Amino acid sequence: MLNSSPPALESLVQELSKLPSIGRKTARRLAFHLLSGDREKMESLANSIINAKNKLVNCARCYGFSENEICPICEDQLRDSALLCVVERASDILPFESSGVYKGLYFVLGGVLSPLDGIKPESLHIPKLMERIAGESVKELILALGSSPEAESTSLYIDRLLANSPCNRTRLARGIPVGSDLEFIDDVTMLRAFQERVKV
Amino acid sequence: MLNSSPPALESLVQELSKLPSIGRKTARRLAFHLLSGDREKMESLANSIINAKNKLVNCARCYGFSENEICPICEDQLRDSALLCVVERASDILPFESSGVYKGLYFVLGGVLSPLDGIKPESLHIPKLMERIAGESVKELILALGSSPEAESTSLYIDRLLANSPCNRTRLARGIPVGSDLEFIDDVTMLRAFQERVKV
Repeated sequence: MLNSSPPALESLVQELSKLPSIGRKTARRLAFHLLSGDREKMESLANSIINAKNKLVNCARCYGFSENEICPICEDQLRDSALLCVVERASDILPFESSGVYKGLYFVLGGVLSPLDGIKPESLHIPKLMERIAGESVKELILALGSSPEAESTSLYIDRLLANSPCNRTRLARGIPVGSDLEFIDDVTMLRAFQERVKV
Repeated sequence: MLNSSPPALESLVQELSKLPSIGRKTARRLAFHLLSGDREKMESLANSIINAKNKLVNCARCYGFSENEICPICEDQLRDSALLCVVERASDILPFESSGVYKGLYFVLGGVLSPLDGIKPESLHIPKLMERIAGESVKELILALGSSPEAESTSLYIDRLLANSPCNRTRLARGIPVGSDLEFIDDVTMLRAFQERVKV
């Protein structure tokens, strides 16, 4: 901190630099941008933060973000409730929704198993997931948990829990991303893409 | 906007994406980061924005940001008031202060001349600068206005205005940045560094 900087400016810079991927220099740039423009915009930014803080809760059914007890996705009668897609975080719902490919429901696990960090099945929403599968007619459970070792073992763990359940378990295909050049593909992705090759 | 996203979340993402260098995807990531962590932190971020908006004004002497009518730098009796450093924006004061090399005063011009965009001397603080130089014993005016054509001609304009003044005008040295490899230096910087070479 510079002694010559006004405290209100320093504290704004400090708060902004707590955001992920925003370092001190970027935080300064953002602060000066905010202060140099229309000051009313600062108020609307602050209000949107407070508004989001106060209004957004976790949906009681899927644990995604919602303004009501049940989120619009879970309440949508047109969606196929026989399909349930399990994701790690609420933000993982976005790519599905933005592609428009999926018309089933979601379930946010709240993390992945990591016994070394003390994250056990009870720390996640796994018991609640089992309850839901047992109580509702979920025909297919899409495990969309990422490809870290922890995520893979969490998928495997859920799969084993459901070994005697009529509910099918699937996961997203792994392979070459659309538009990628083969020469830039990493070894593990190449391996998966080869192993999971499909008939043309 | 996705229909399935709660409005409070969408409006937070939208407000964040108005910040410079923050696109929609980064804004989403920031929003989810804020919402997933300690919600009290959102309040302190919002408060620091409101606080900065309400408390920070332009210093009446240098036009930098200040919480009082006169900023701590202008009020500091230990600083050398015979030295005045002219910068374009309030944020340009920071690199001087953080290097600790300069112990004089500052003057924020508020921009650079650009007749095509309608920015004339009266749109900037140039008249006020002339007043200050005439009224106070400024011995050296350091023009630190950047190297765009507009900034260069603004420096030249101020220099001409002071042609008959006893106040000396200087500008920052241009040359190779410390720690840079010669092979990565652009042509214009190389030209300046060569032209302004000094005795070892």
